[in-house]
Amino acid sequence: MGMKGSGFRFGSMRQGERDLITDVPGVRVGHVTLSEGEIQTGVTALIPGEGSAFRMKFPAAAHVVNGFGKSTGLMQIAELGTLETPILMTNTFSVAACTEGLLDYMLTEHPEIGIKTGTVNTVVTECNDSGLNLIRERNVTGEDALRALTNAHQDFEEGAVGAGRGMKCFGWKGGIGSASRVFAIGGVSYTLGTLLLTNFGARGDLTVCGRRLAAWDDDAEDRDAGSCIMLIATDAPLTVRQLGRCARRAQNGLARTGGITGGGSGEAAIMFSTANRVPHACTGKLLEMRYLHEDHLDIIFRAVAECVEESVISSLYHAETVKGRGGRELASARPYLDRLMKNAEHGTDLA
Amino acid sequence: MGMKGSGFRFGSMRQGERDLITDVPGVRVGHVTLSEGEIQTGVTALIPGEGSAFRMKFPAAAHVVNGFGKSTGLMQIAELGTLETPILMTNTFSVAACTEGLLDYMLTEHPEIGIKTGTVNTVVTECNDSGLNLIRERNVTGEDALRALTNAHQDFEEGAVGAGRGMKCFGWKGGIGSASRVFAIGGVSYTLGTLLLTNFGARGDLTVCGRRLAAWDDDAEDRDAGSCIMLIATDAPLTVRQLGRCARRAQNGLARTGGITGGGSGEAAIMFSTANRVPHACTGKLLEMRYLHEDHLDIIFRAVAECVEESVISSLYHAETVKGRGGRELASARPYLDRLMKNAEHGTDLA
Amino acid sequence: MGMKGSGFRFGSMRQGERDLITDVPGVRVGHVTLSEGEIQTGVTALIPGEGSAFRMKFPAAAHVVNGFGKSTGLMQIAELGTLETPILMTNTFSVAACTEGLLDYMLTEHPEIGIKTGTVNTVVTECNDSGLNLIRERNVTGEDALRALTNAHQDFEEGAVGAGRGMKCFGWKGGIGSASRVFAIGGVSYTLGTLLLTNFGARGDLTVCGRRLAAWDDDAEDRDAGSCIMLIATDAPLTVRQLGRCARRAQNGLARTGGITGGGSGEAAIMFSTANRVPHACTGKLLEMRYLHEDHLDIIFRAVAECVEESVISSLYHAETVKGRGGRELASARPYLDRLMKNAEHGTDLA
Amino acid sequence: MGMKGSGFRFGSMRQGERDLITDVPGVRVGHVTLSEGEIQTGVTALIPGEGSAFRMKFPAAAHVVNGFGKSTGLMQIAELGTLETPILMTNTFSVAACTEGLLDYMLTEHPEIGIKTGTVNTVVTECNDSGLNLIRERNVTGEDALRALTNAHQDFEEGAVGAGRGMKCFGWKGGIGSASRVFAIGGVSYTLGTLLLTNFGARGDLTVCGRRLAAWDDDAEDRDAGSCIMLIATDAPLTVRQLGRCARRAQNGLARTGGITGGGSGEAAIMFSTANRVPHACTGKLLEMRYLHEDHLDIIFRAVAECVEESVISSLYHAETVKGRGGRELASARPYLDRLMKNAEHGTDLA
Repeated sequence: MGMKGSGFRFGSMRQGERDLITDVPGVRVGHVTLSEGEIQTGVTALIPGEGSAFRMKFPAAAHVVNGFGKSTGLMQIAELGTLETPILMTNTFSVAACTEGLLDYMLTEHPEIGIKTGTVNTVVTECNDSGLNLIRERNVTGEDALRALTNAHQDFEEGAVGAGRGMKCFGWKGGIGSASRVFAIGGVSYTLGTLLLTNFGARGDLTVCGRRLAAWDDDAEDRDAGSCIMLIATDAPLTVRQLGRCARRAQNGLARTGGITGGGSGEAAIMFSTANRVPHACTGKLLEMRYLHEDHLDIIFRAVAECVEESVISSLYHAETVKGRGGRELASARPYLDRLMKNAEHGTDLA
Repeated sequence: MGMKGSGFRFGSMRQGERDLITDVPGVRVGHVTLSEGEIQTGVTALIPGEGSAFRMKFPAAAHVVNGFGKSTGLMQIAELGTLETPILMTNTFSVAACTEGLLDYMLTEHPEIGIKTGTVNTVVTECNDSGLNLIRERNVTGEDALRALTNAHQDFEEGAVGAGRGMKCFGWKGGIGSASRVFAIGGVSYTLGTLLLTNFGARGDLTVCGRRLAAWDDDAEDRDAGSCIMLIATDAPLTVRQLGRCARRAQNGLARTGGITGGGSGEAAIMFSTANRVPHACTGKLLEMRYLHEDHLDIIFRAVAECVEESVISSLYHAETVKGRGGRELASARPYLDRLMKNAEHGTDLA
Repeated sequence: MGMKGSGFRFGSMRQGERDLITDVPGVRVGHVTLSEGEIQTGVTALIPGEGSAFRMKFPAAAHVVNGFGKSTGLMQIAELGTLETPILMTNTFSVAACTEGLLDYMLTEHPEIGIKTGTVNTVVTECNDSGLNLIRERNVTGEDALRALTNAHQDFEEGAVGAGRGMKCFGWKGGIGSASRVFAIGGVSYTLGTLLLTNFGARGDLTVCGRRLAAWDDDAEDRDAGSCIMLIATDAPLTVRQLGRCARRAQNGLARTGGITGGGSGEAAIMFSTANRVPHACTGKLLEMRYLHEDHLDIIFRAVAECVEESVISSLYHAETVKGRGGRELASARPYLDRLMKNAEHGTDLA
Repeated sequence: MGMKGSGFRFGSMRQGERDLITDVPGVRVGHVTLSEGEIQTGVTALIPGEGSAFRMKFPAAAHVVNGFGKSTGLMQIAELGTLETPILMTNTFSVAACTEGLLDYMLTEHPEIGIKTGTVNTVVTECNDSGLNLIRERNVTGEDALRALTNAHQDFEEGAVGAGRGMKCFGWKGGIGSASRVFAIGGVSYTLGTLLLTNFGARGDLTVCGRRLAAWDDDAEDRDAGSCIMLIATDAPLTVRQLGRCARRAQNGLARTGGITGGGSGEAAIMFSTANRVPHACTGKLLEMRYLHEDHLDIIFRAVAECVEESVISSLYHAETVKGRGGRELASARPYLDRLMKNAEHGTDLA
């Protein structure tokens, strides 16, 4: 039941088969990693589901926990309640390049955009990896974004890969983390998964399954700055308003890991449902949707918090040590986490 | 086609049968007016539709244009997207008394509230009528609120009645105004109506069908303070997010009447749909709803603006002169408006 | 350094002298408790500082974590960024009675309100105590509210008192909890304190200093419903926007206690600063304020989370067992918490 | 007193010297226009004031009227309340290219960004000009953006220039419009100005000084889709919260021109003040600011509405006829507006 063989278990709910966001049917994730000397960065692509996201949009909501960030596309999600493209993650100064790549992708697949119909709302999110990466050089290209989109599969790596290559989390090497939960409502089984780009937290605050080791408080210079992007997918049928309620619970998961949502840390959640897709074209007929009664949301709120918490720790668990800009090195938290678990196995600490 | 025999016509859409919010099937409105010396105030009740609003809730959204106000119940509408009681309008310091009356009404009809199920979100809105009314005395009672609820009918008066008794609008006697529009989408006919409590605007700004008479600019002391409550009903099937988009267009109607949304003027809109009611009780099954494609909303945006604009002028047109606190008198705008129309009939001004 | 002799310690920051919100100079708190048979409820009053809050307002911000609630006055705080009355806490159906009491208090002290100047924005917050209290009877009166205001002192009780009398938190007896932190910025010492009305959480989720005891998972019926009101005071000079940022961190503290911010749990935070008070009267001159640079906020974010976390546990620690409606009894968590601490002292669990 | 020799007068307030946003001291505007066959587009740059916007930031607020849009940078303005770069306007698919250009500009001037300090929040706004412009080709380059920044002066053109080259407004040729107002508060004179990119409105709705000519209703195909970007500058000392209140009044100006804020029209306002600049670097000392009492805001609300209304009409008045994609032509509204004024001079219509 633990997280990917680590022994850690977050919350009480059941994990999906892969314990990845791709347990939600149709969701795929792809990475392009750039790693050469002072260039330690990349791009990660999430495909929300089968078929064209533009022609059959996904109900979606965004929640900004702390708006110190440069992600794009959230304004239109907030207004229209739909996601109509894949979502990219990258470094702060590569949002524009990734937008070009995502536009290439969308315009190629949809010759009607900008000609017979309107424009398209590309969603590109970011964290600042300038600690390890020479971010001013803007080495990610639109082609990298396209490759990440093409690479997307159900199975994907976590850790210091893709957009996560240069990220730092709780003073350790951060990056990409994911998790999933399955649950039944009204006799029907649903899945919820999260994909995080973790780049926040001060070392002394890291809390794993409730344990905060004051011993790590020594790094007084370490600040909770950076950011965290949280993508949340589910096949549960939810209205846009309900998706917004769920997205607002992502903060609970972050808080459980010890983060204080630092002032310089841009934290944003985007949640979408693969049920009830919304046609771009208007036929004149009423649209139909089925959705969960409000009383059923608590289990989903719980799943969001558990998945976000696990995804943060999973990003740490899977990230290797990376060396980058100016010879700086960020250590993998893996040995520390393994030791923590070993100790726990001899006690009752991390049941 | 003009507004209730006045000759004025606002916008291009077709009016409903009564040109009142009660053209939306099921909606009813009732007043209790208190008028004696320095007491010039009251309460107005809106019943959103047939049957229990608590057991079968109405999809709803609220939009605060300017939050200088003390209305209650909007926070829960924003979260849950439902209206579960009638809506009351009254003066600022009678919100509590009307809440008690509305609670009496709800608790009597629903013995399960607070015992077998949770609480209930009572919605009470207000404007400050302290110019004409000795507001500190808080003369409206819970019984008055109950009577307004009981009085509610499809036919109701506009002008200086109910909660509108002491209100002031553009320097004239304001109060209650209403309007409706009918329109077809996908071959189906829908109705939208508004009920306004008007208590805003400086005299020099009043604009009727685009005409602003600078001659009235003389009252330099007159400030745009007060408030305006805008209730919007429709039988068009809209999601909560769509209702929110529509509610945000209420400001367009206010702006057309010349208002500047003054800093001290609490302006809030609450919009609900009588389609797709939402059960309080959870049966474990998915709920179903049908709703309009986003491309169909423009006609509803237009209806909101036209109805709000007309409701403001209708409140002025129907309000009689009222004398109140300290012998102050607010004149009916009726003679002025009739003269304006007469002039227009000899020209092309107010086509 | 632990919480009021309990041995528990939340976070790393230093507590204020009393470890209560009243460590912020000028803040006072008073209770009126109603406890007789099926009536187990009350009212708690917070005075934000010296002198008239109406004539010299307090910069303030509100943040709604989950809007399933009936608190009043938050809309105007959001618009104008000021608190101009004391804040009351009570049960859901006594908001109106407490509003009347608070209005009495304000109108008596300010004869100009409603006559020579505008109205006043009374702030009354609530949680649903219908588990222990016969809430439908609405036994709290305006006089109770007045007495709570008059009773307010620097020293006050926590636990099952005032508005907290009938509340339930994580399946135990909840109620009133408070905490404070002191910190230095730029060589100046500041204080931040919180006052919570705790009425949320499922028993199996309770987490104390990171420890969640799965043993308590047995109460499958227990849902995270209820609410939590979080009042936050500081003498640090913050702008309204900064107060809003701080208030949004209250959720971090709740999350650390294991809460999932349940769908039926109305969680709202109101934060004010006693620095930079804002005059009601306009003299025509510019107002002046001094405020902290944005880079200094992290320590305040941390203080908010620590105080909220501690306040929740403090409410449990101080609440006695209470018996109420239908003979239902909610047990004090004190013995459980003491046992937890005792075990911890023999291990390293709750350092 | 009329608008730039047109005879039209919007509202009652006094215009600035140029009747342009550049009447606010320090503000400059520059265009780069691309006009060749099917390429009819461009970029417009606004420099908010003297010196580095990054090192001494401008207090700012953003308000999204209708979030159908792809502008970037608004999220961070909402969180931090500061503008730290110039603002660019362009077409929807050139946001990325302009972001690159603005990044070049900022990184060149600030070698510390991404190395010794964090990143920078570039603000790029957009409207969809795909009616006249082959938007899919993305012909605007980062160099164009840089040139627009370098070109910025106090004097600048309105109409079909810069980002306005391909825009359509009320069925006529739209584009760039600007206006300003001066006013005194507490004996001190302040200026407020607006810069609009107009691309919204259905022809039948156009309202000029209150006059809507039903004769133009014939174009049944014309929909209110497009967008409108509204930049608002002032030297009045306002807090971020107050700037937000002012920005929310921009909708009043749009509504006066007859717009219905169509569902597909992305309308957003960004407002900043050149008073009370905020240092990037934290020195450990408190910051100081002076600001207007809330009672003084009404005159600013009025200025916002008047300037936005005038800017819309000014964009029409100054735009020449443009031919573009597929040979489509959008006619200048100038002859129509001149005829309207001539008629008015013989009557009382547009006093």
